[in-house]
Amino acid sequence: MGQSKGRVTIPTDLDVIPQTLEIMERWGADALRDCDGTDFPKELREVDAKIYSTYYTTRKDNQWAAANPEEIQQMYVMTPFYTATEAVLRVHLMKGLYPDMLKPNSRDDIKRWWEVMDRTTGCPVAAEDWQYDESAGEVIISALPFHDYTVSFLAYIMWDPVHMYNAVTNDWKEVEHQITFDVRQPKTHRYTMERLRRFIQEHPYVNVLRFTTFFHQFTLIFDELAREKYVDWYGYSASVSPYILEQFEKEAGYRFRPEFIIDQGYYNNQYRIPSKEFQDFQAFQRREVAKIVREMVEITHEYGKEAMMFLGDHWIGTEPFMEEFASMGLDAVVGSVGNGSTLRLISDIKGVKYTEGRLLPYFFPDTFHEKGDPVKEAKINWVTARRAILRSPIDRIGYGGYLKLALEFPDFVNYVESVCQEFRTLYDNIHGCVPYCIKRVAVLNCWGKMRAWGCHMVHHAIYFKENYFYSGVIEALSGAPFDVTFISFQDILENQEILKEMDVLINVGDADTAHTGGPWWDNPVIAEAVKRFVHEGGGIIGIGEPSGHQANGRFIQLANVFGVEKETGFTLGYDKYNWDCSRHFITEDSAGAIDFGDNQKNMYALENTQVLSETGKRVNLAVHEFGRGRAVYVSGLPYSFENSRLLHRAIMWSAHAEESLHSWFSSNYNVEVHAYVENGKYCVVNNTYEPQETTVYRGDGSSFELKLKENEIIWYEI
Amino acid sequence: MGQSKGRVTIPTDLDVIPQTLEIMERWGADALRDCDGTDFPKELREVDAKIYSTYYTTRKDNQWAAANPEEIQQMYVMTPFYTATEAVLRVHLMKGLYPDMLKPNSRDDIKRWWEVMDRTTGCPVAAEDWQYDESAGEVIISALPFHDYTVSFLAYIMWDPVHMYNAVTNDWKEVEHQITFDVRQPKTHRYTMERLRRFIQEHPYVNVLRFTTFFHQFTLIFDELAREKYVDWYGYSASVSPYILEQFEKEAGYRFRPEFIIDQGYYNNQYRIPSKEFQDFQAFQRREVAKIVREMVEITHEYGKEAMMFLGDHWIGTEPFMEEFASMGLDAVVGSVGNGSTLRLISDIKGVKYTEGRLLPYFFPDTFHEKGDPVKEAKINWVTARRAILRSPIDRIGYGGYLKLALEFPDFVNYVESVCQEFRTLYDNIHGCVPYCIKRVAVLNCWGKMRAWGCHMVHHAIYFKENYFYSGVIEALSGAPFDVTFISFQDILENQEILKEMDVLINVGDADTAHTGGPWWDNPVIAEAVKRFVHEGGGIIGIGEPSGHQANGRFIQLANVFGVEKETGFTLGYDKYNWDCSRHFITEDSAGAIDFGDNQKNMYALENTQVLSETGKRVNLAVHEFGRGRAVYVSGLPYSFENSRLLHRAIMWSAHAEESLHSWFSSNYNVEVHAYVENGKYCVVNNTYEPQETTVYRGDGSSFELKLKENEIIWYEI
Repeated sequence: MGQSKGRVTIPTDLDVIPQTLEIMERWGADALRDCDGTDFPKELREVDAKIYSTYYTTRKDNQWAAANPEEIQQMYVMTPFYTATEAVLRVHLMKGLYPDMLKPNSRDDIKRWWEVMDRTTGCPVAAEDWQYDESAGEVIISALPFHDYTVSFLAYIMWDPVHMYNAVTNDWKEVEHQITFDVRQPKTHRYTMERLRRFIQEHPYVNVLRFTTFFHQFTLIFDELAREKYVDWYGYSASVSPYILEQFEKEAGYRFRPEFIIDQGYYNNQYRIPSKEFQDFQAFQRREVAKIVREMVEITHEYGKEAMMFLGDHWIGTEPFMEEFASMGLDAVVGSVGNGSTLRLISDIKGVKYTEGRLLPYFFPDTFHEKGDPVKEAKINWVTARRAILRSPIDRIGYGGYLKLALEFPDFVNYVESVCQEFRTLYDNIHGCVPYCIKRVAVLNCWGKMRAWGCHMVHHAIYFKENYFYSGVIEALSGAPFDVTFISFQDILENQEILKEMDVLINVGDADTAHTGGPWWDNPVIAEAVKRFVHEGGGIIGIGEPSGHQANGRFIQLANVFGVEKETGFTLGYDKYNWDCSRHFITEDSAGAIDFGDNQKNMYALENTQVLSETGKRVNLAVHEFGRGRAVYVSGLPYSFENSRLLHRAIMWSAHAEESLHSWFSSNYNVEVHAYVENGKYCVVNNTYEPQETTVYRGDGSSFELKLKENEIIWYEI
Repeated sequence: MGQSKGRVTIPTDLDVIPQTLEIMERWGADALRDCDGTDFPKELREVDAKIYSTYYTTRKDNQWAAANPEEIQQMYVMTPFYTATEAVLRVHLMKGLYPDMLKPNSRDDIKRWWEVMDRTTGCPVAAEDWQYDESAGEVIISALPFHDYTVSFLAYIMWDPVHMYNAVTNDWKEVEHQITFDVRQPKTHRYTMERLRRFIQEHPYVNVLRFTTFFHQFTLIFDELAREKYVDWYGYSASVSPYILEQFEKEAGYRFRPEFIIDQGYYNNQYRIPSKEFQDFQAFQRREVAKIVREMVEITHEYGKEAMMFLGDHWIGTEPFMEEFASMGLDAVVGSVGNGSTLRLISDIKGVKYTEGRLLPYFFPDTFHEKGDPVKEAKINWVTARRAILRSPIDRIGYGGYLKLALEFPDFVNYVESVCQEFRTLYDNIHGCVPYCIKRVAVLNCWGKMRAWGCHMVHHAIYFKENYFYSGVIEALSGAPFDVTFISFQDILENQEILKEMDVLINVGDADTAHTGGPWWDNPVIAEAVKRFVHEGGGIIGIGEPSGHQANGRFIQLANVFGVEKETGFTLGYDKYNWDCSRHFITEDSAGAIDFGDNQKNMYALENTQVLSETGKRVNLAVHEFGRGRAVYVSGLPYSFENSRLLHRAIMWSAHAEESLHSWFSSNYNVEVHAYVENGKYCVVNNTYEPQETTVYRGDGSSFELKLKENEIIWYEI
């Protein structure tokens, strides 16, 4: 069964010293860590384990922050929309914001760095037509009656949003608000390097500096009631300051406008088709962040320590899937694992020596209380993540929070013991081997590799009703036996040949979003390349409103490829006769009603399209041949094992590979088979919490019957 | 009980002469008519009734049509989208079209009047890059591979679409296809006036020429299987010819392009935001059609006959709600009554001496067969239409088809007898009087008065799943005690003062359609005017995606007014806390779940908005105060008596008129009260097919209890 120790990190604290040793033994942990709100006990410094220490690059030093208020971090904030009803409009900047968290920056030239926007015309209000009444905290605008206005302003981050979140969630009382300082600015930059050296010198027992994280917090704002107001795990709006923006202006060669960041109040979130200016800004940030990270990593290495990055909190600008990342020289990345997609956000990272996944639940009182069921949460988390680990393994697993809380749940301690052992076995069996991939699948959107696995994520692994039937597709792919890449329209524009490396393209999301591309489909180069790809034999799968953008007589720009069109009212005059549904290879494992989610798309099928499912004269699933290629349309696909199978079959069909289905395959979709041919191993894994029976097909098509216990994974030699 | 005779028209035929007399007596008919497929019997020429004769202006003279093939009517047709896969693309023009109905017009200069469009770029293909292979019926295009192409071409109408429809529906065998000739063209124009004189001279017993209709058929095309392929009761694409278009070019002062009519294949249907060129063309057609109609009316009058227009078939260009209409000098309009909205399409027409509604069912074998239930159809039709008649009466009712078929259903004959009597009583009571209107309501869209009552109609009174929850609003209004007008954005642009004449604005439909306005909301004049109207105390009701258009940080452009916004993904990062529903004046009569239709709009409420109904975190109904005004948002409102009441209450609330609710009002929403104060009458009407009990409130708020029989209408003196 391989090693019984290693590849596991656990948290510790002053109050659990002997218990830490016991848990290390039981879980086979070889690393100990502290967390936000815990301290590392002196008594464990000599223990036989690597010791991680969280290192907060941008906070936990209020003395410095207070002494250098101009180098406190800043963020761009847009007020709500206010309708002027007379010639003067007063806008209170902090309305709707938590007062202790943000402080408008009027130190710098507000006429340069703030922007008052007439949102009725889309034009900025001239600088002379507004002023700031600092004592009232109000911007006073010479307004046109019944125009809508917003104010974009810079604010200092007077309470680090993650510290605030932890304090509010754990009900920490009378905690000093940790101020976020800006390592990018000259004084703090210098000071930070000294502070890092001092920290390392003062903590000689620490082996691994777990940077939490680098310089810029993802966007997170709270309202007056300390409730979350806005969150974007990918948001860049808290990575700004006049100092940074002036540098950006120099590099970009054009004048910066707050609107580049504010983006009409949408803050360039992942649904927005990214503007050139925002992409320029991201590229600038990546380069600048990488420079300073490299500096810190070099210092860490100078002292013989490892540098580990936490992929969370202040991770903005590091962009693990972009070129600059490897140049930072980091030893490791650790991140929180919420599901298969977030697992691959970590495990697919190149350019580090190892990756570590922090499994859930976090040992916090929100789960570890009398009525909580941490075993259930742990099981769901592990089984969900395991699918993805089997495709692309992380190198280590770990836990966080207050160990003391976990110890009160012996069943939990037992369960985690089994998980740790299962992980080590799994890792031994698959390490260093590319799992068998049946087909090459590319997700095509505006973000490409930069948002690989996270393209439909707003907050980390959090479910949104509006996108769960799209993010379900990405989740299904995270554990599916395909070679999955993420490409952008820009990638195709630059090199149409990349499509030759793909078997199947996937375009998934709502119309006119970054996920489906919107006006990119008006670019003949894109339209030609994708149509040619399919016509010459490629597969394409569209989910939701693929290629959706109203132009030139079409809403679905690839209507001739997918064989479906959306009824927006414009084609109500056309009679539609194609509604009869038929069985198909794709739906052969779908018994009864398929769950397409609850957001129907008003699609109808064109002539010669084969409809596989419709509800109330709206097509849910259809297939269409285009030249030598094949297209599949699906209205939505929430994540489930059954839907994962449907997607699997859709990929196989669209790639003309129906005959290869029964290779490393389980007849029962609750069970999956993964093969590691180079290592001579394969496994059969039960993804459910009940026993399952299935027929397992080997790579040569031979098969055998198998019964699996709940969650079981069984390893075989090939 | 008033008169027992009059105001009723019935059809007759050669085979029902004595029965016609009997039915005249029983139904109190004072007019007889023929129909398409029937003949007027000689024996009835001297009967004591007006005699109508259908007169087909543009067909039933194949000899003329065949002798003047260049003056056969034409229509613009666009082929489907074809994707080129190599450098040459061949497009067969008649694919998907009924071969006997259309014939491509290659007589005129096809390079001028046809257009080959590259739908990938949106540009026309140069004339030298395509040619027509007449023998193959194919256009051959020098194509860019993987661009989509369409061909817009002119075709002669070799079988009048309504004649074809009647022939197919009634299974007429071996009928000669009636060709449609173009009265607008010089030879046919001259001939038509002579033909009309001859007809009148040859039919001296005819009193009323029922023109069926004038010159241009609404768009109606059939596919290879003779199934309806495309229909638009408002469509202008069959009103074209090079002769007409050259005149149009002269008037408009710019070059005509087929794309003005083709409109990317959308044919300028009612969902499309009308282009300037299409509006110019409509205006030109109205003027030209009016001129020739006037000529025909003058001839009719010269012979002492009345000219009645059938509002159907070839009605295009007459536009009964536009200025030119009255100038035609018509005596009467008759139209088919499908529901309350279509009733008001007729009854609201000004500039004629009287209006007549042809009630359903038509005496055709599709209803009058062994298993048919014509009484049920008649009841539904009458009760539905009666609501609207009580607001705006037609002057006459009538029936069409084969009388012989109706006679086989004695219950039907009895029921219609009661309808005729009820109609006469009703007419006597309300004629010449403006019914009591509580508030002035304006429906605001891109079409305004030109599409009054028909704005959400694609085919005449036909239900479409995509718009029944919008057309339901118009249907509710057709019988509601409000002064309803239809205004356009252009109307507001030209004169913002018109809003002062309104109490409540309604904007209903999907985003980016002519119904809600799309980019019109980017025009500050419109945005200002509407916001000012509400802020100063006006009411506004938005249904579906009112003011929906993505721009300047908003999808719902009036988000600050309605207090709701649509989640398109762009605001997923914003937390939404406003979901608690409360009771309200508007929902007081709504017991249980309200039917908002099945096409949820992903709406969420802004702060300070009061949510009245949500499903799965999508707002169905919400109210919001804006300045002194009030806004109501509804996601959809299919027609029902309960929803009609909800709309009634929404209007009252938004107009600050809750206190006036109990004036000419029924507590039971299945029953309505209409008052005719000038005439000293009011009625209470049961709109259902079951007995009802209710409390009836008089104008002064006093009330009494009342039981009504099914469908009953009871008249009172004030």
